[in-house]
Amino acid sequence: MAVGKNNFPEQMHAVAGFRLGTTSAGIKTPGRKDLVVMALEPGSTVAATFTRNAFCAAPVQLARTNLAAAISPRESSVLQQGIRYLVTNTGNANAGTGSQGLENALVVCNRLAELGGVDPAQVLPYSTGVIGEPLPVQKIVAGLPDALASCREDGWHDAGIGIMTTDTRPKGASCRFELEGQPICITGIAKGAGMIKPDMATMLAYIATDARVAAPLLQRLLSEAVDASFNRVTIDGDTSTNDAVTLVATGLGPEISAEHLETFRARLVAICQELAQGIVRDGEGATKFVSVLVEGGATKAESLRVAYTVAESPLVKTALFASDPNWGRILAAIGRSGIPDLDVDAVSIWLDDVLIAERGGRAASYTEQAGQTVLAADEFCIRVDLGRGKAVETVWTTDLSYEYVRINADYRT
Amino acid sequence: MAVGKNNFPEQMHAVAGFRLGTTSAGIKTPGRKDLVVMALEPGSTVAATFTRNAFCAAPVQLARTNLAAAISPRESSVLQQGIRYLVTNTGNANAGTGSQGLENALVVCNRLAELGGVDPAQVLPYSTGVIGEPLPVQKIVAGLPDALASCREDGWHDAGIGIMTTDTRPKGASCRFELEGQPICITGIAKGAGMIKPDMATMLAYIATDARVAAPLLQRLLSEAVDASFNRVTIDGDTSTNDAVTLVATGLGPEISAEHLETFRARLVAICQELAQGIVRDGEGATKFVSVLVEGGATKAESLRVAYTVAESPLVKTALFASDPNWGRILAAIGRSGIPDLDVDAVSIWLDDVLIAERGGRAASYTEQAGQTVLAADEFCIRVDLGRGKAVETVWTTDLSYEYVRINADYRT
Repeated sequence: MAVGKNNFPEQMHAVAGFRLGTTSAGIKTPGRKDLVVMALEPGSTVAATFTRNAFCAAPVQLARTNLAAAISPRESSVLQQGIRYLVTNTGNANAGTGSQGLENALVVCNRLAELGGVDPAQVLPYSTGVIGEPLPVQKIVAGLPDALASCREDGWHDAGIGIMTTDTRPKGASCRFELEGQPICITGIAKGAGMIKPDMATMLAYIATDARVAAPLLQRLLSEAVDASFNRVTIDGDTSTNDAVTLVATGLGPEISAEHLETFRARLVAICQELAQGIVRDGEGATKFVSVLVEGGATKAESLRVAYTVAESPLVKTALFASDPNWGRILAAIGRSGIPDLDVDAVSIWLDDVLIAERGGRAASYTEQAGQTVLAADEFCIRVDLGRGKAVETVWTTDLSYEYVRINADYRT
Repeated sequence: MAVGKNNFPEQMHAVAGFRLGTTSAGIKTPGRKDLVVMALEPGSTVAATFTRNAFCAAPVQLARTNLAAAISPRESSVLQQGIRYLVTNTGNANAGTGSQGLENALVVCNRLAELGGVDPAQVLPYSTGVIGEPLPVQKIVAGLPDALASCREDGWHDAGIGIMTTDTRPKGASCRFELEGQPICITGIAKGAGMIKPDMATMLAYIATDARVAAPLLQRLLSEAVDASFNRVTIDGDTSTNDAVTLVATGLGPEISAEHLETFRARLVAICQELAQGIVRDGEGATKFVSVLVEGGATKAESLRVAYTVAESPLVKTALFASDPNWGRILAAIGRSGIPDLDVDAVSIWLDDVLIAERGGRAASYTEQAGQTVLAADEFCIRVDLGRGKAVETVWTTDLSYEYVRINADYRT
């Protein structure tokens, strides 16, 4: 149950200096891939954004600490080589696990560092899955040699599967382009299907490029790209404890000059948006992929607030599931979104190009048939003009189906 | 599908000077009661709170205007007699209907005023049902004589049924007590099952008392009672365009002296809470009635914010439906509720009296079995201690079931 075609690209361009290895460590059901190691060329730069959930998971705490140390190495000369490994387990989030959780994440990093001949601080850990259960650290440690041994530059597809939890399919995006005759790749994978309302980061996503980019610039580029992609999707309004987006630049390809910065930035945003939208298309129980575009806001913040209120309204989402153009629910959601002094007579609402409401009521030209035709498709846009200014924001979301309830009532029990 | 016993009281104490008449005007399916007229003794005082949804319905706009004029009569001496009729239709919300909607609400008020021999400004109109459809004004007008003729002081039960939409049962509350040997009644009814997240008012509720209370005090008492009851429930987080709570004091009983104000206030709050909780128990698809109690907040605002975030999390709600003590989802919801500098190690969570989490992780004493025993019941409490201060807030909510999706995907189509 996912919207649109399987969007994992046939061709995932290998990124020189970035290798991925995947194995089954027995954390999830037997035989399912659940442990992924990514190996970075010495000298790679790394940027990341993490969840702002106050209950962030142990691996998030540790990854944040190690990354900060790697970016500004002070004590250890080995850290001049930067981050060398990313290790991800699924099936268990190692969140809500207190100090034991942190200790378990350290054990995993220590063991991988030992196997790879690096310092434990050069490893970033990631976990995703059930919250509040002890991390099965022995299974993970036992699986590390196999995951490490299988690391290859063309390991993207297996890794895309290895990071899945309730996802029904892997999510990937890849591009290759030239800057002054020199080829550059950006390739990434993401996972996520529920507990999706990113806050400055999202779910898990790993993106690598062979470009040479200094760490501070890489962080700025990633933060901007995340803001235009992962931070604009919502499935259920629940922000995960484990969200992380990581961008690696191996530096084996050309350096990004100031002149080409915009080209690179645009390509990176496109990759992030493809991955973020891939997560929404695979949202738990999703039968619709819906863009909520709010224009005419006085500020971007208010346009975004209206977009999220519409996108997260259970009544709007169940109407979308029913392909029912129940625009009264959209109007009610806009009205409760807390915009001060909203002039309802200035608000207009469209389904794709069909004007459905204006001046506080149904548009004279609107017919139920026209609305139903739009909603019969599995992808469409709800467009709102607030008539107050020029700020535009877009949020991508899904409907709310029986399947959503089934997945989330069954999960874990 | 509603939680707990049918809570419509066997004895609804008649309020002297307040009569209710109910009929079938053919707005809903044939034979269903859908039109209610309430007649007030001359000199009754009236207080009301209305939705803050910017797209408030035509009847809300008109009722607000008429009530303001009645409380501070300037132009018409007839208004000295105050509000004389409340008229409610179900099956159609007359919301999102623009200027035609306002005209239609006026037609209903005019016709009832004519039949009752009062000024149209002495009538308050209410509508509830589908948003965005034209009000079937002819059917309503045609039904008014019958509704008016059937007005009786013991008409509460029929009126409770007459104001229902997706409700599965009427909601009522009634009490009778004495102040210095003089009996006083407070009796009320409410409707509502979906689009429930009140904002300074909620759904429709009508409460009457025979006490004599001046309008400004009556308004203050109502606002405080609503804040402690209807403004503390959420089913789906969606605030209606038509919410209204109306309190009538006919003045045929004793005057409330300063000395007895607290007694009266406490009784009024109890009636409002019983009605508000009745709405939650009959929430769309509800199988659980859940109190979310948040204590230890630095401010009441932050305790309330955490309570609503937990109560509206789709992941928490689907876990409740599954009777699954998935406390990780509760913890994640607390973590994303936006409380600045939350010390997760100071947070504790209980299911009824079972401590499930503390210091950022599972409580040592907790067993899955103990959690499941609590959740197997159809009523329980999620209690959170934020460990930051003394502010306490409670919100009442439901689970999220297949039936919720079915009701809201089917409704209107």
